[in-house]
Amino acid sequence: MRVEIWSDIACPWCYIGKARFEKGLESFAHRGDVEVVHRSFELDPGHAKGEVGSVTDMLAAKYGRSRQEALAMEEQVASHARAEGLGYLVGDRDHGSTFDIHRLLHLAKARGRQDALLDVVYRANFAEERSVYDTETLVDLAVEAGLDEAETRVLLADEDAYADDVRADEREAAELGATGVPFFVLDRRFGVSGGQPAEVFTQALEQAWQGRALTPVGEDPAAACDADGACEIPQAHTHA
Amino acid sequence: MRVEIWSDIACPWCYIGKARFEKGLESFAHRGDVEVVHRSFELDPGHAKGEVGSVTDMLAAKYGRSRQEALAMEEQVASHARAEGLGYLVGDRDHGSTFDIHRLLHLAKARGRQDALLDVVYRANFAEERSVYDTETLVDLAVEAGLDEAETRVLLADEDAYADDVRADEREAAELGATGVPFFVLDRRFGVSGGQPAEVFTQALEQAWQGRALTPVGEDPAAACDADGACEIPQAHTHA
Repeated sequence: MRVEIWSDIACPWCYIGKARFEKGLESFAHRGDVEVVHRSFELDPGHAKGEVGSVTDMLAAKYGRSRQEALAMEEQVASHARAEGLGYLVGDRDHGSTFDIHRLLHLAKARGRQDALLDVVYRANFAEERSVYDTETLVDLAVEAGLDEAETRVLLADEDAYADDVRADEREAAELGATGVPFFVLDRRFGVSGGQPAEVFTQALEQAWQGRALTPVGEDPAAACDADGACEIPQAHTHA
Repeated sequence: MRVEIWSDIACPWCYIGKARFEKGLESFAHRGDVEVVHRSFELDPGHAKGEVGSVTDMLAAKYGRSRQEALAMEEQVASHARAEGLGYLVGDRDHGSTFDIHRLLHLAKARGRQDALLDVVYRANFAEERSVYDTETLVDLAVEAGLDEAETRVLLADEDAYADDVRADEREAAELGATGVPFFVLDRRFGVSGGQPAEVFTQALEQAWQGRALTPVGEDPAAACDADGACEIPQAHTHA
C-alpha cells in the first residue's frame, strides 16, 4: 500500500500531522507493507527566492494582528506540537521560498533519504529556529540526513534540477482536490486532509487495506504467462 | 495517475503486452499525466542462478511436446509480436534466472532509466536472441540504456543489492491477486491481466481517470494550512 503525503516544510500542521500519521501507522497491523512518499506543495509559491522575512511579521500582516497576537497564535500551535512530543520554539523563525527545499527532497527521494531529510528540516525550522532558507544550513541538514554534500551543492546551484518534479507534485495535488496541506492520499483511493488525530490515520489505513481489491478490466482468456511458467496463446480470438 | 506493470523479461506476453499498453496509452487524452512503474515478477523463481538452458527444451519438457512442436508454438507467439511491430526470433533463446535482471531494473528505476532498460533487455532476449543471462551482455545493455557501467557491475556482483525490492514487488503482486504476467494496476484501483488489445488499455486508463475522486476520511475542521498560507487552529475540538 502506498501513502502519499503532500506537505510544505513551512507548514506547522504538516510537521505535527507527520508525527500523528506515524503514530497512527504504528497501530496499523500491516504497517510493514506501507510505503510512504512525500510530495511537494508550496504554501507560498509566489515567494521570491532571496526574500527571507519573519514569520511573526507575516502572520501579523496576514491576520491584521499585532506581533504579540501573532506570537500567541503560534503558542497555541506549539502546544499541539508539544503534545505530540515535538520541539517547537515560539520565537521568530524565518519565512521564505521553500522551492529549493522541495527540489532537495526530490533528490533525497531518489537516494532513499527523503523521510530522514524531511524530519531534519522540520526539526531545524520549528524546534531549533535555524534558517532553512540559508544554503549552508540546508547543506548541513542534507548531510545529516545522509545525502552527499557535493551532490547537494550541485543540486542547489542548478535551479532546474528536480524543478519539474516539484511542479508535477503540485499539479497533482490540485487534480486530487487538495486545497491545503498536509494532504494524505492512500493508494489513490482515500484522502485525509489535515493533521488529523492518530486514530483517524489508523482508520484510513484500515479502510484502504480492506478496499484493496482491484476492479478487473479486459477480457478472458488473456495473453499471459502464468506463475507456473506457462505462456498460453489465447485461442478464443486473436488481436493481431 | 500511476500504472504499475508487473512483468518478467522472460515472458513473451509481457514483451508484447508492453507494446500494446503503450499503443493504448497513446490514445489516452491524459497520457502526459500517467507515470509508469515496472515491477518484478519471476516466472521461474526457483531457477538456479548459474543454470542457463534452452527455452525450446524447457517448453518441450513443460508441455510434453517435441522440440519441433515447441518451436511451432513459439512461431505463433512470434506472429503476435510481429503484428505489434516487434522483432521476434524463433531460434533457441536462453532460459535462466531473471532475478539479477530484476535487481538491475530496480537500480535503473532509481536512475530514471527503468523503461529504457526494459526495452533494451526485451529486444536483446526476443528480437536478437542474445543471452541476457550473461553478465557482460547485461552490462552492455545497461550502458546502452544509460546506466553507469561501474555501478552496474557493483550491483551485479552484490547479490543483496535491491534483492529485497524484487521480493517486495513479488509479494505485492500476490497480495493484489496476480497469478501471471503481464499484470497492470492503475492507481491501485483497476487491474488488467495479460497482454490485452491496445483498446482495452485505453478503456482501463479512461475508467481509472474517471474514478479518480478520493473518498475522504476524517473530520472537519482539519488542522491544516491552506493554499493561501493560513494555518488555522481547529476550534471545534482539540486532539492534544
